[in-house]
Amino acid sequence: MRMNFKEHVISTIKNKNSAVCVGLDVEPGKIPAVLKNEKNPVLKFNQEIIAATKEYTAAYKPNLAFYEQTGIKGLECFEKTLEFMGGDVIKIADAKRGDIGNTSKKYAHAFFEHFSCDAVTVSPYMGEDSITPFLEKEDKGVFILALTSNKGSFDFQMQKMADGRYLYEFVIEKINSWNAKKNCGLVVGATHPELFEGIRKLAPDLPYLIPGIGAQGGDLENTVKYGFVKNDVLSLVNSSRAIIFASDGPDFAERAGEEARKLRDQINKCLK
Amino acid sequence: MRMNFKEHVISTIKNKNSAVCVGLDVEPGKIPAVLKNEKNPVLKFNQEIIAATKEYTAAYKPNLAFYEQTGIKGLECFEKTLEFMGGDVIKIADAKRGDIGNTSKKYAHAFFEHFSCDAVTVSPYMGEDSITPFLEKEDKGVFILALTSNKGSFDFQMQKMADGRYLYEFVIEKINSWNAKKNCGLVVGATHPELFEGIRKLAPDLPYLIPGIGAQGGDLENTVKYGFVKNDVLSLVNSSRAIIFASDGPDFAERAGEEARKLRDQINKCLK
Repeated sequence: MRMNFKEHVISTIKNKNSAVCVGLDVEPGKIPAVLKNEKNPVLKFNQEIIAATKEYTAAYKPNLAFYEQTGIKGLECFEKTLEFMGGDVIKIADAKRGDIGNTSKKYAHAFFEHFSCDAVTVSPYMGEDSITPFLEKEDKGVFILALTSNKGSFDFQMQKMADGRYLYEFVIEKINSWNAKKNCGLVVGATHPELFEGIRKLAPDLPYLIPGIGAQGGDLENTVKYGFVKNDVLSLVNSSRAIIFASDGPDFAERAGEEARKLRDQINKCLK
Repeated sequence: MRMNFKEHVISTIKNKNSAVCVGLDVEPGKIPAVLKNEKNPVLKFNQEIIAATKEYTAAYKPNLAFYEQTGIKGLECFEKTLEFMGGDVIKIADAKRGDIGNTSKKYAHAFFEHFSCDAVTVSPYMGEDSITPFLEKEDKGVFILALTSNKGSFDFQMQKMADGRYLYEFVIEKINSWNAKKNCGLVVGATHPELFEGIRKLAPDLPYLIPGIGAQGGDLENTVKYGFVKNDVLSLVNSSRAIIFASDGPDFAERAGEEARKLRDQINKCLK
């Protein structure tokens, strides 16, 4: 029997003893000079980063924008990067997709079938029928944008609804009702640690993908204190730039590995 | 001097005497049998559809999901389809993207620089800094999801905020404030014709991209009556399936041309 997505997240974090997600947001201009003569420097970079961080990492999250910016070549790199990850990590396409039902169905096919990802990030603005096509198979999951890590999260997500709740709370409540197959998760930014306690009460049962640690300045300690469910660790803490661009020298992979290990240890220490 | 995006929409609609946008949402399984032996049936289909409809069409809108579903091959087809359109139509990437600032910047590069599109559809959920990277050049525009054509539009967009407005009205007001370079537009679904009058009052100055006519059952007459600005026609009415799959026989392109012409004439009649 296949595990549902929630069980997959829990068991991967347990097996790896790590709740770290490494964001593979690779800017071609930032590739270390030592790789410049490679046939495909970005792919080689990703492969070396994955090899060096895998021991300390439960999930990888390539953001599609960084691959689409170079068109077909970038998508080839995305595909080969996913292949290189192997089977013992959670592969998250950070795509923030969402469209009318028959179109979301195509996106679900793209990411789950064609690229064999385990999860996709999606935007809730278009409502239930834009999300449900991603939820058909219990072993494939979505992380739905709830409260994001950026300044723009104040524009709509943190506006009050008629019943006094914030929009993001309203969204989370809806998401709970879409979770029959235990394959919904939330994106919640670490830049809002003061809100984590309330969010975990609203959605005690969902896996969280937590960006905003590192370059964006999020608060790790409170994030783990309030955003995590401790017995079955359910949250993944993403770090991109702070890990993958820890060094631009020939030691870039080694340093990325160190940063991933450090983040794993920091999270595990907070969990105790 | 380059035209801003709003002027580009107005002048293209005027030059073409048409407010029709053809949605190139091509399902490989629906390609007419007559093209099955082509080297690239989907690309050949798109090229024949474009050649047959171009006289009656102001804009083309390929939806990325339909291309991404076949991965690299699909993206190649997307790229070649855009090249085939030529310069006298508005090229809209229906991508519904949106991410934190440094990531949206990459998407803007992908669609505006790499693929040379004129406009992208984007989702507002992540707020201002997720949209502004798309607005840097005045001749490149966005159509921001305001009130979409699907059932899910009731889940969040049509929920009331604390001040009594609907979320979509709140979103539209924000968008007005982002429009310094006259390159913002709205996506407003034709399935909500009773709301068009109010929406046009909220945003008298923005180009609209209007899906939902045809297969989704939207109301053309009221859409044109209330959603259009008549002196400078500012709205594009999209139809996908009803045009491109009008016939699955050898006459598929001819029939698509007829349907595009018919829609153009219906809109122009309503405009009188």
